[in-house]
Amino acid sequence: MSQIPAALPTADDALALIKPKVRAQSAYTLNAPYAVRKLNQNESPYDVPKAIKDAVLARVREISWNRYPAFSPAGLLERLALRHDWTPEGVLVGNGSNELIQASLMVSVGEGTGVVTSVPTFTLYRLMTEVLGGRHIGVPLTHDYQFDVEGLLRAASARGSRVVVVNTPNNPTGTPIPDGVIERLLSDTETLVVVDEAYQDFGGPSAIPLLPVYPRLIVLRTFSKAMALAGLRFGYALAHPAVAREIAKAKLPYNLNQVTLAAAEVALDNPTPFVEATDRIRAARERLYSRLTRIRGIRAFPSSANFVLFRCEARPAADVFTRLVEEYGILVRDVSAGQGLNNCLRVTAGTPEDVDAVAGALDAIFGTLP
Amino acid sequence: MSQIPAALPTADDALALIKPKVRAQSAYTLNAPYAVRKLNQNESPYDVPKAIKDAVLARVREISWNRYPAFSPAGLLERLALRHDWTPEGVLVGNGSNELIQASLMVSVGEGTGVVTSVPTFTLYRLMTEVLGGRHIGVPLTHDYQFDVEGLLRAASARGSRVVVVNTPNNPTGTPIPDGVIERLLSDTETLVVVDEAYQDFGGPSAIPLLPVYPRLIVLRTFSKAMALAGLRFGYALAHPAVAREIAKAKLPYNLNQVTLAAAEVALDNPTPFVEATDRIRAARERLYSRLTRIRGIRAFPSSANFVLFRCEARPAADVFTRLVEEYGILVRDVSAGQGLNNCLRVTAGTPEDVDAVAGALDAIFGTLP
Repeated sequence: MSQIPAALPTADDALALIKPKVRAQSAYTLNAPYAVRKLNQNESPYDVPKAIKDAVLARVREISWNRYPAFSPAGLLERLALRHDWTPEGVLVGNGSNELIQASLMVSVGEGTGVVTSVPTFTLYRLMTEVLGGRHIGVPLTHDYQFDVEGLLRAASARGSRVVVVNTPNNPTGTPIPDGVIERLLSDTETLVVVDEAYQDFGGPSAIPLLPVYPRLIVLRTFSKAMALAGLRFGYALAHPAVAREIAKAKLPYNLNQVTLAAAEVALDNPTPFVEATDRIRAARERLYSRLTRIRGIRAFPSSANFVLFRCEARPAADVFTRLVEEYGILVRDVSAGQGLNNCLRVTAGTPEDVDAVAGALDAIFGTLP
Repeated sequence: MSQIPAALPTADDALALIKPKVRAQSAYTLNAPYAVRKLNQNESPYDVPKAIKDAVLARVREISWNRYPAFSPAGLLERLALRHDWTPEGVLVGNGSNELIQASLMVSVGEGTGVVTSVPTFTLYRLMTEVLGGRHIGVPLTHDYQFDVEGLLRAASARGSRVVVVNTPNNPTGTPIPDGVIERLLSDTETLVVVDEAYQDFGGPSAIPLLPVYPRLIVLRTFSKAMALAGLRFGYALAHPAVAREIAKAKLPYNLNQVTLAAAEVALDNPTPFVEATDRIRAARERLYSRLTRIRGIRAFPSSANFVLFRCEARPAADVFTRLVEEYGILVRDVSAGQGLNNCLRVTAGTPEDVDAVAGALDAIFGTLP
């Protein structure tokens, strides 16, 4: 460690070269102490089956690790196109759908470009918009976390608005966009409409059937949730081939590693365990919601995703968060700092045992046990 | 395929929403027909040893694939810090160093920001600068592909220049930056200096010893070349901790998948085979250069990287490229469309057999066989 001086020089001259909007952002962080029940990131509670892991690892062992992945992974693009009845030229793959959110915004957002989203929603849309010099226009959800459809349409029609991002079902509220709204956004406004369907496997309508009609539509999907591959990072975008070609310019070449490519292909060839797991998770979410609604002192919101949002009405959310971790070994997500999320926590619908543990712990914390 | 109409609508309305500078770019492409000897991407010719693969795969089998990777991979950051005698808070990891080039530019480049590079160099710097609305300022290398040091200093001092990117050794020429030049750029100008050392394991000076003195310095490294992990995508950046914190804001969360994390750690714990392979590749490069200099009709340029650039003086490069693939099963990189690279090809220094095959084929093509 010899070369590191006891104190580094201050970095003021360097920081002066960083864009002010970037410096003004707080970094994306995660308060995630260890817990037995990890229900804070909306992961699948079911690991990939051993037989699938073995098939992936056998392929990976034979691959030359010293060689770059294929420039364009044709086999994978074809499987994804088939899955969604779309054309392979209109499919882009990335390291999680986050990379494709970033690329979609990079090619469309410059100084002052208006980007409309509902709030609260996944924070990355706003953060990336600001890094790119764009202007984030937040349209609040209604008081019970429904989409304000007329508000979205108005904001999307305003001067300078170029992109609308809709997360459906919406994170962290679980709200699905009502049927027909994406089509109205496309037909009644002139914006690019990016629909992030990270949680769509668990419920709510999909915008994919609109792809053949509206070239301004970009749909994002991920394998991190229902497909249980959060650890391998895989997501994709579906768009008109001409639009996909433009988004590809902001995507890094060879961005998908060989292992993730192999895992995505094997998973697509063996869908059954993932479909079954999704059914179980959907049932767990329904039971979780129903259990939470019966606890006096919290208000749970209906969800079409693999998590449930609830507001702590009788106690501070921060205390509930801490007691869940420390006394019950349950890690949830404290989202209470988000706009409109005062005193709210979000909990992933895990296994049936997770649901019982969470409901039992909250029963005890809120003193509603018999 | 029922939902795809015979002809999709035109995407004119969507393309009008893409930034003009993006639309004006041609997409990054690669003309890479299959060949027995793949010498077009500067990969290591030596795959990761089987024992290391097995150690990585054993770890990967035990990992929960359904769980996100660690928010901050502490063990890996510490190993990298130790490797370079730097502090873990000043290390950022990414999917190949490309992701860190992109993030470094995203936090510093806005509308009209000047970004200085030598030309020719790796094209991604210019492409990313333009996507971000910045202004690329190219400083030509000298006629024999040396860095124009005074030209770089002048361009970096010009009004509006905020970032200088130096690729050393430079791709595709193999030129190392002369000793002391990075320090002059840092001390005589006020820009961020990004030094991409993707090929530094093969030769030329490193800027890493300057990190404790200059907070405006960002050094990028990759495991895709000397560390033989191109297929797994791993790169990292070293910078002042305060600068690293800002760059992290443009990096996607959880961007490194579990397998790549495991592979990078195991490789760092077992450096010997990679050091030995690097020695062999350096020797192959020297022999390749020396063989090429003896072929009449081509001019080879000295290189500090794991490839050699040569100009076809007696025949068109495109013909030589095609004959190498079709008659000899050797794939090189046709870089002749690049600025200042008229009639030039780039060939990776592979195994000793690769060197003999390339030199033999070029001997035959240029008619200099006895």
